[in-house]
Amino acid sequence: MDVKKNIALNKPNTGTSNRFKNFPMVPRVVFGKGCFDQLGEILLPKRKSSDAPIIYLIDQVFENSSLPGRVPVLFNDKIIFISADEEPKTQQVDSLVQFIKDEFEELPSGIVGIGGGTLLDLAKAVSIMLNNNGSAHNYQGWDLVGKPAIYHAGIPTISGTGAEVSRTTVLLGPHKKLGINSDFTTFDQVLLDPDLTKGVPTDQWFYTGMDCFIHCIESLSGSYLNAFSQSYGEKALEMCKEVFLGELNPEESREKLMMASWHGGMSIAYSQVGIAHAMSYGLSYVLGTKHGIGNCLVFQHLGAYYPEGVELFMKMKRRHNIELPKNICSVLSEEEMNTMISVSLGMEPLWENALGPSWRDQISRESLKEIYLKI
Amino acid sequence: MDVKKNIALNKPNTGTSNRFKNFPMVPRVVFGKGCFDQLGEILLPKRKSSDAPIIYLIDQVFENSSLPGRVPVLFNDKIIFISADEEPKTQQVDSLVQFIKDEFEELPSGIVGIGGGTLLDLAKAVSIMLNNNGSAHNYQGWDLVGKPAIYHAGIPTISGTGAEVSRTTVLLGPHKKLGINSDFTTFDQVLLDPDLTKGVPTDQWFYTGMDCFIHCIESLSGSYLNAFSQSYGEKALEMCKEVFLGELNPEESREKLMMASWHGGMSIAYSQVGIAHAMSYGLSYVLGTKHGIGNCLVFQHLGAYYPEGVELFMKMKRRHNIELPKNICSVLSEEEMNTMISVSLGMEPLWENALGPSWRDQISRESLKEIYLKI
Repeated sequence: MDVKKNIALNKPNTGTSNRFKNFPMVPRVVFGKGCFDQLGEILLPKRKSSDAPIIYLIDQVFENSSLPGRVPVLFNDKIIFISADEEPKTQQVDSLVQFIKDEFEELPSGIVGIGGGTLLDLAKAVSIMLNNNGSAHNYQGWDLVGKPAIYHAGIPTISGTGAEVSRTTVLLGPHKKLGINSDFTTFDQVLLDPDLTKGVPTDQWFYTGMDCFIHCIESLSGSYLNAFSQSYGEKALEMCKEVFLGELNPEESREKLMMASWHGGMSIAYSQVGIAHAMSYGLSYVLGTKHGIGNCLVFQHLGAYYPEGVELFMKMKRRHNIELPKNICSVLSEEEMNTMISVSLGMEPLWENALGPSWRDQISRESLKEIYLKI
Repeated sequence: MDVKKNIALNKPNTGTSNRFKNFPMVPRVVFGKGCFDQLGEILLPKRKSSDAPIIYLIDQVFENSSLPGRVPVLFNDKIIFISADEEPKTQQVDSLVQFIKDEFEELPSGIVGIGGGTLLDLAKAVSIMLNNNGSAHNYQGWDLVGKPAIYHAGIPTISGTGAEVSRTTVLLGPHKKLGINSDFTTFDQVLLDPDLTKGVPTDQWFYTGMDCFIHCIESLSGSYLNAFSQSYGEKALEMCKEVFLGELNPEESREKLMMASWHGGMSIAYSQVGIAHAMSYGLSYVLGTKHGIGNCLVFQHLGAYYPEGVELFMKMKRRHNIELPKNICSVLSEEEMNTMISVSLGMEPLWENALGPSWRDQISRESLKEIYLKI
């Protein structure tokens, strides 16, 4: 698995380098309680013909809720429910694309992803692959996509991943877990309706929110930051604090966390994550730990590196009675532990962002093992 | 002059209304010290042929600086220097469009505006009018533009107006001062290079920065706000405070004010300005006072409405030794004063945003006159 490449292009934009990424932003966004009901109107001008459907990819948890009934299904539009229990896969994207091509004579007018990071990433990938030949795994990397994606819209139903604004879709391929990073990946439209995050279970809400919080702590204390990303990251962090430690009412809390995720996602334009993400990747590789909880598992033990951030995190965790699993690394074989450490240390830019160019002098395989064994 | 219409569509998005604007964002942004030198590379793929030029509209103050030499002029590209001493006019847009059509056989590949709000607004308007028939004044209003603008990029050289992210270009027409508000108005590309704001004179820097500050104070205390705009407005306000009252070095200060302007501009998506803007519009109509300084002239006397904001403003003004002109309204005839008051009171949504639905009970022609006479 080529984890190193996954972050290799998020190189510092300051100091020696005078080149800055020309960042693609989501060109259209609507925000508001209940704005989901504007979806039909938003999609109407995007419909090419009555034979070119809109395909809705929706998190399976909504299958028996009132949400599907509110989806503006017209003509031969199709709703496909997809489980978000596992990470999205290139093979899954290929199957979806094949299914859509077999089922319809015309290419869809658009793909709409409704759900968390997994559904949003699938919607991005499917919309790309409907216009590009071959398997999705051929496009994992940077700027390998030759043709624009078909129109795609993202509608988050849980807040924190920032997938709604990013230019990547991270997929598990046959050989590697790696994003399709391209200017065509970014959504054409995002719809932010805080009411859609109403029924999220507390633990999921916490882990996904912490994805944003930990991202902010890591990027704001990192060496890759510039004023653009700093301003977004600071605002996202401030809103996370309000949401997880403040006295907001539930409606305000949903709204603020949705905006925190948005700003946190924007802050990645010119920033990089750090140690928690590097080590969480190791966990994910060896144990299949999901991204949000993996970050939490690692971050709680990083007080030496992010003292204030970890203190805040522990406060938030206590405040919301979150119990993290324990001793999950104690069962690992020596070989597995070694793999985990190697995967983590392979993510060089994250370590460099966190500890500076001489990061290798400040961290050792032994010190990583020590942290992992606490998890 | 139809000032009322100019803001009529910025109606509250909360409360009774369940409809939210689907806001067009700038789809591509690059930020960084020195990123101006990436302009050539950014424009290259936008060039349709060697006969379809890029037209650069540049603030005349740069005519004898090193900037024009850094502009990536290729083939038959043209630089046009334009004075920003006066507000941009529909007639000026028409002349520019006619000149470009006469001068070149093909439509330009793109228009690049380099300067403050005036130059950015001109670039937006010219790019629209090159693809739409008739005079620019026919398009003043909301969503009257039928065809997409040609590619246009904005490069601010002074921070605070937010014109770099807005979907309007405010023009003085034969009958009214009113924006061309449309989804085609928004720039296709923005380049944010804080170094370009280096030589701005202190008073201009202050007035334009206060455009952002006052906007934030008005929108954050207004009734039209939602969580999306609030998050942007709060960040912009915080950065204004850092810039005008903090201890930043000049480089940080330039970077933060550029980002404050950006976030302040984004915050207009779902917010509205207030009393200072309403009254400043009156000044502008009768006396030709420019927007930035006009806001300052009014705002200093609005302590009764924005106590904390005005206190901060006075601190900033003292800190930077800004002397505002005095007694500029004392010379007005009774008729002129009446016009000024009528123009200001005509901006109903601004008053409603500031004082609520019963704003008419809280403000009178007499109270406005009293404030104007202090200016």
